[in-house]
Formats: sequence, structure tokens, C-alpha cells
Amino acid sequence: MQSWKTLSRRTILNHSRYLVVEEHTVELPDGRVITSWPWVILPEYVNVVAVTTEGKFLCFRQGKYGLDEPSLAPVGGYLEAGEEPLTAAQRELLEETGYEAPLWISLGQYQVDGNRGAGTAHFFLALQAQRAAEPVANDLEEQELVYLEQAEVASALAKGEFKLLPWAAITALALLHLNREFASLA
Amino acid sequence: MQSWKTLSRRTILNHSRYLVVEEHTVELPDGRVITSWPWVILPEYVNVVAVTTEGKFLCFRQGKYGLDEPSLAPVGGYLEAGEEPLTAAQRELLEETGYEAPLWISLGQYQVDGNRGAGTAHFFLALQAQRAAEPVANDLEEQELVYLEQAEVASALAKGEFKLLPWAAITALALLHLNREFASLA
Repeated sequence: MQSWKTLSRRTILNHSRYLVVEEHTVELPDGRVITSWPWVILPEYVNVVAVTTEGKFLCFRQGKYGLDEPSLAPVGGYLEAGEEPLTAAQRELLEETGYEAPLWISLGQYQVDGNRGAGTAHFFLALQAQRAAEPVANDLEEQELVYLEQAEVASALAKGEFKLLPWAAITALALLHLNREFASLA
Repeated sequence: MQSWKTLSRRTILNHSRYLVVEEHTVELPDGRVITSWPWVILPEYVNVVAVTTEGKFLCFRQGKYGLDEPSLAPVGGYLEAGEEPLTAAQRELLEETGYEAPLWISLGQYQVDGNRGAGTAHFFLALQAQRAAEPVANDLEEQELVYLEQAEVASALAKGEFKLLPWAAITALALLHLNREFASLA
């Protein structure tokens, strides 16, 4: 199974550091060429499911421009220039919640859109989190920190209360990981 | 917690049916106004985790332009104009695999990007799927249908072999749903 080739690329919209659009000329594995393939560059981001030493999940109830109503959300944010994903994850956890954690597990990195790009998500599970500082409020969104039991997180996820794709994705991946860990201990 | 208001919107790039970019003037709940908020319109899509009467998961090994190497993937595709998500899901399952299923469970619908939009994903779990026709090859991608056991799917997911965000998301949500169903029967 051969991969597709990018024969050329040009920027057709340079909006800001939040959005650049390119048009690519792409050669398919069977030799066909597509001359105006749109490619969307959005910032890379991290999300973190953090579980405290007491077994509570650190979640937010927060609004987002793209959502009609508030959603449950994990910790998250954009990578800063040159920042490693794990460093960004640890920074966001501390900034947004005031918590630090000694144990970090990667839950993978995923391209957001297989056709258009649209950024990359880096997911982490932080265990044994403990309060180390006051959170810093520097995001545009209002957000309220809530402490949920694992069963409450699972129930909220099943009811669609994590309304964004990356938030549902990392929450499901974290629950599977923790269930597997639990199963392997049983 | 109040939602954000869109005060005005204008199209700044009308590329094709695959991509439109708008710029919005947005009022935050605290009264601040942002005048050039980029908003990306990508097509809505469905993904389907389908499990056969023999308990096999219908997956593809396929390439995507956005991926450097092939990935495991569920069934999926764009909604056609005016098409309901469930109808699209059933159409894609039949077209891509030749299977039909009598039992469909929604695994939710999710905005892809909370800041930029970037489309909406609709996820379904199809159970008791049975072969009804020959698949139709009409996508750009080469893809090979593979039949996996649930434990193989879980293992591949944990190893990062579902490389796109929606593919990892729906697979994790489906496994959680099936685990919960199993637990409630135990």
C-alpha cells in the first residue's frame, strides 16, 4: 500500500497563527493527479485526563465558541512554539488546575482530519495528581473545575456530555486504559 | 455560564464543497469583542464500528493523504447533501463492506474543533452485521477489509494503530460501550 505524494504546495490563505490554508497538487498511488487539494493547518494541541491521588478526575465545565452549550472538558491547550507535547501537557495541567502529577502516560497522538490535516492532538493521562499551586486564568473561556468519580466520567461520556471530538476521544481512551490496568491487576 | 455571540460573519475563502473559511466577529460572555475569529467549514462525516454476527470487527487497513503510513480504520465517509447521519452510516457500511446490520446504536455526535468548527463527526455502532452485497470501490484510497477480534481491536487501539482522531475516538467509544454491555450481562 503506497502513500500519496505531494507534488507541490502553495499558501492560499495566511490568516494568523491559528489558521493557514494551503492548496496541494497530489499524486495518488494509482498515478492520478489532483491539482487543488485543500490542506488546513491548525495548531497542535494537547489534552490531559488527570486523576488525583484520591481518584478524582479533574474536569472542567466550560463553554467554547463552537458549542451551543457548556460541555465537560479535560485539561488542554495549544503547544507553544518549539514546545514538546509532554511539556505542554504538564504546563497546561498546572496552569489550568494548579495540579502536578508524577506519573504521565501517553494515550497517543492523532491527526485530526485524514484529508485536510487540521492539526494534531497529543493525549496524556496524568496519575497521582496533587495540588501544587493556584490555577492561572488566562484562557478566553469561562471554566469551572469539577472533581468527578471514574463512574461519573464514564456515565457523562456515554450521555454525550463531552461534546468535542478530542474531549470524547481522550476520555474514552483514558477509561479503556484504566479499565485494562484494573483488569490486569485483578 | 453564557455562550459566545456571533455578531457578524463573512466568507474569506470559498474553496470548494470540501472547504469554506469564514471570519467571525465574536462577543465573549464578558463583553470583549474579537473581530477576526477564523471559522473553518469542513463536511460532516460518519464513522461506523461494525461487528458481524460472528463477533468480528469490520476494519480497513488503508492509507490517507494526511497519514505517512497506512492505518487501521473503521467504515466512514461524508454525508451527502440533505442526508441524515444514520442513513449515511448505513449507506457507507453497505458501499464499503457489502454488509448490512439490523441493530444501530448512536455513539454520539461531536464538533471536531471547539474553536474553529472543522466539521462534525457522527458515530455509530452497528451490531449483528451480515454480508448482503459486494462492496463498491468508489473512494480515492486503497483499502483492504480486515476482520478483527474485539481483543485485537483493543490491542491495536492501545498501540496507536488507529492513527486518526475520529478513528481512535469511535473505536474507544465502541469498546467502552461493548464492555459496559458485557458488564451489565455478567
